[in-house]
Amino acid sequence: MGQAQVIDGKAFAAGLRARVAERVAKLKAEHGLQPGLAVVLVGDDPGSQIYVRSKGEQTLEAGMHSVTHRLPAETSEADLLDLVRALNADPAIHGILVQFPVPPHIRQSAVLEVLSPDKDVDGLTVANAGRLASGLPALSPCTPVGCMLLLRDALGELRGKRAVVVGRSNLVGKPIAQLLLQADCTVTIAHSRTVDLPAVCREADILVAAVGVPELVRGDWIRPGAAVIDVGMNRLPSRDPVKAAQGKTRVVGDVAFAECAEIAGWITPVPGGVGPMTVACLLQNTLTAALRLNGIAE
Amino acid sequence: MGQAQVIDGKAFAAGLRARVAERVAKLKAEHGLQPGLAVVLVGDDPGSQIYVRSKGEQTLEAGMHSVTHRLPAETSEADLLDLVRALNADPAIHGILVQFPVPPHIRQSAVLEVLSPDKDVDGLTVANAGRLASGLPALSPCTPVGCMLLLRDALGELRGKRAVVVGRSNLVGKPIAQLLLQADCTVTIAHSRTVDLPAVCREADILVAAVGVPELVRGDWIRPGAAVIDVGMNRLPSRDPVKAAQGKTRVVGDVAFAECAEIAGWITPVPGGVGPMTVACLLQNTLTAALRLNGIAE
Repeated sequence: MGQAQVIDGKAFAAGLRARVAERVAKLKAEHGLQPGLAVVLVGDDPGSQIYVRSKGEQTLEAGMHSVTHRLPAETSEADLLDLVRALNADPAIHGILVQFPVPPHIRQSAVLEVLSPDKDVDGLTVANAGRLASGLPALSPCTPVGCMLLLRDALGELRGKRAVVVGRSNLVGKPIAQLLLQADCTVTIAHSRTVDLPAVCREADILVAAVGVPELVRGDWIRPGAAVIDVGMNRLPSRDPVKAAQGKTRVVGDVAFAECAEIAGWITPVPGGVGPMTVACLLQNTLTAALRLNGIAE
Repeated sequence: MGQAQVIDGKAFAAGLRARVAERVAKLKAEHGLQPGLAVVLVGDDPGSQIYVRSKGEQTLEAGMHSVTHRLPAETSEADLLDLVRALNADPAIHGILVQFPVPPHIRQSAVLEVLSPDKDVDGLTVANAGRLASGLPALSPCTPVGCMLLLRDALGELRGKRAVVVGRSNLVGKPIAQLLLQADCTVTIAHSRTVDLPAVCREADILVAAVGVPELVRGDWIRPGAAVIDVGMNRLPSRDPVKAAQGKTRVVGDVAFAECAEIAGWITPVPGGVGPMTVACLLQNTLTAALRLNGIAE
């Protein structure tokens, strides 16, 4: 009967952005320092264009310096790497985000090898993965950080809870497992090779779905009262056949929301759950990077 | 009734060392390249002395170049870092191992920051932790690699098995969890904050104990037929009170061997299980490092 408390990621993200903006204003007043974020987009993918514009707008709204570099799709890898090196060296820039995917003639790995780990606000470099895995101060990927903030807000103390992460990507699954482990959860990582995935999911006090399979997680996979975090963002044709024929789409998560909301204690919707947290955490990471690069206490 | 098959790590390690020696001989014959391992010991801890001597002997027996630097306990951090830098630059050296712990006036983190990841045959640098976490070619810590070799030898295919790792150290617990995940296991990381640890352990097809608590894991924690890998090396007073009074000790693992051997399908003894694998895997890592540093296919 829909007992779960629906976690309002949109409202939480708005609050987080406001708190970041306050700290940015304080940093400017007390230290004369304005955090700066550079976003680099190669090519003209419409989805990426919208996403990059939104990042730029939210950066400005938080009182930060915002630079967006839009490069043509035929930009060479060498030119992109030169731009990243220039941004590494630019003292007005504290966070650098290269919007992935880049065109196929550019190696993502080459970009991440050049990108300074101290400005890697997406938390994608090997150095930041190593710092996270070693329990050192890292810039952690934004979506996992956002999931943790929502979980702490909903549940309070996470220590000793059983967490199951479905999915083992470098961008989401693995880093969120590390963060849950740091929070003293007992963490299980499940994936496409897991035997009896429903039974493994039923062990979870905290279930994080990050696999990219629409509505994979069903109601009978949920332990009653569990917190369910849906990282999925899957685009399906509109339910309305006329709109679908016009190419209209709808977004669904990795969790069958209605079924699972009957059993779970907390659940994030899609859209409006984890999604809005990602950019808010990007701003927070940029602030953190600015503080660390300038040796100011966080 | 002791039904478990006891995994003979000593014999497996001897076989592995012989295979490494064969490949070293072939490398010398075909490429004129002799892998070299430098071991650095600061201070005169008797245990470390024995360990370092054994590493040097086994390196020579494998046909490798072996250098041992024994530095006085009062060596400054700056001098140690200079030595590490010199070894980084020495083309005859492909693996560098600084024996930890170092004296308290030297920061372990400073040593690992200077050590070249490409020669970090202990797999302790942040760069190698990041490569491992990101699924890139890494030099992985020796003990976890040794555990994986024993598991594959005993069980064959590991895909889909439920693995529980008790302990989350950077040296053992976390890297072995990564390696089990790469092998397509469903991996749970448990630790001192885990609620009902026995029940979590009973879920395991593969149970790895790496906590440093003597005989923590009891017989009724084991799923019948499971593979139990005991990484513990705990020194207790001798059972013989006269010998104990003389300071004689015995080594026990994290697993109550006799009890667990009645239930498990496979089990490693202590000593003679995981322990001997560590140096054999160090030699294998040194060979791997030599191949990679010289661009020779592995």
